Formats: sequence, structure tokens, C-alpha cells
Amino acid sequence: MTHPAFPSDVLDAIHWDANGLVPVVVQERDTADVLMVAWMDCHALEETIRSGNACYYSRSRQRLWRKGEESGHVQRVHRIAIDCDADVLLLTVTQLGHTPSIACHTGHHSCFYRVLEDGAWTESAPVLKHPDAIYRSPA
Amino acid sequence: MTHPAFPSDVLDAIHWDANGLVPVVVQERDTADVLMVAWMDCHALEETIRSGNACYYSRSRQRLWRKGEESGHVQRVHRIAIDCDADVLLLTVTQLGHTPSIACHTGHHSCFYRVLEDGAWTESAPVLKHPDAIYRSPA
Repeated sequence: MTHPAFPSDVLDAIHWDANGLVPVVVQERDTADVLMVAWMDCHALEETIRSGNACYYSRSRQRLWRKGEESGHVQRVHRIAIDCDADVLLLTVTQLGHTPSIACHTGHHSCFYRVLEDGAWTESAPVLKHPDAIYRSPA
Repeated sequence: MTHPAFPSDVLDAIHWDANGLVPVVVQERDTADVLMVAWMDCHALEETIRSGNACYYSRSRQRLWRKGEESGHVQRVHRIAIDCDADVLLLTVTQLGHTPSIACHTGHHSCFYRVLEDGAWTESAPVLKHPDAIYRSPA
């Protein structure tokens, strides 16, 4: 999914929050798993649309975050949807870089690897690759 | 999924934002469709856990929003997951009240009914029931 140019009203239609951001839900196309939630500013969305690879805005680092730039765990974007209030985006992606796929910096498939069970947040999925091994040798 | 009591560290583990809220991704169990994103404060989460039905915090109305209270489109909650940063929740639900299921106040199945196509946000799914009919006769 690559658009070399697109009308500004694609961006204007979005209700950016007070910080100029929107939350972005990321769903894996093949499994339908929700992999993560990240944030975009307008520059991140523009780059995502132009390149076809997911680019977010890192609130902690306060800069664009090209997903996979360190880990190699790039996300190829197939589809971008927007919700009724135009304040959340939903990306449908292929998560590249590892099999089975790893979206989370902890080495889990999905960031949502803890589930409420018996009154506690409980890990429900394994670490597929140790973070030291992910970030020692960026692809 | 009903927990008559649960430890406070379930709530304490969550990184609530400056307004005391977290975003909540809602995924339908049977279809794996992402239905919506809403927000919870700690009271909404407590009620959701206790009742087993989704309760959110409405930012526009500034009060608890028992999903389906007007529309009848209640969400039965099967699973609550939390992400690596503990600042987003993921609910797995059965969307009740209509067949096929309607989560969106617009009468669409999912709130994400518009997709970026050819440089414009384009409706990709039908209205299943007109909002006037949904909100005229709450179940």
C-alpha cells in the first residue's frame, strides 16, 4: 500500500489530540491478533502512507519511530481504517523480521501478553526471542 | 468472566494517564474484528470486572458509560489483557443486541468502517440498523 501523493483532507479529517497525536491499533492480517497500540502524529502517518511501512511517533523519545529501525521487526501496512469519531486509526499489517512474528520490544508476539486471571495480570504467551538478542544485532 | 473481588494491585499496575484514563481496544471473540476503542477510568474497570459487561468512561459525557445502556448493544467480556507498558487494555467480547453484531453508534458493525482508499476515507461496511431505530427503542 503506497500512495505517492494524497490529499491533505486525509489528514485534516483526523481529530488529533491536544498533542497532535492519535492512537493507532495494529492488527496482524494473517492471525487477526491485536499486536500493539502506538501513536502517530501527522508526519508519522504521511510517512506510513508514502512508504507502506509503519512509522509511529514515540512519546517517550519524542521523535518519529520507524517500527523495526532497531529490531528489524518492520510492519508492512496493508490497510488503514479510521473510527467513527475520527480519533483512532486501525492498521492491518504483516509483522516482518521473525517467525513466529514479534511485535513487542519484550520479545513477545503481541504487546498484550498479560491477561487478568484469578485477580492478577498473568503472562499468557512466551518470549519468542530475548530482547538482548533483538537489540544487539539490529537488522 | 466475573470476579466478585480482586486485589487493588490489578488497578495499581495500570499506568493511568493524566486524566486517570486508559484506552481500551475492544475485539470481538468470534470474528476477531476490532470493534471500537473506548476509555476506562478505575471505576469503569472495576465495574467491568465485577459485572462481566463492558463499562467505559465517556469523555464527552464525563461519566460512566455502561455500553448498551441506551442501545441494548451490551458487550459481554471474556478476557482482559494489558500491554507491555501497562497503558492500554484489550477486551475480548461478545457483542450482544443485534445479529449481525453492532458495536458502533452509527449502526455499523465496527467503528472502523472507513478505510483509506485512493486518497480518501471511504466507507467499507454498511449501516446494519439506522441510529434512529437503535436509540428510539432501547432494549
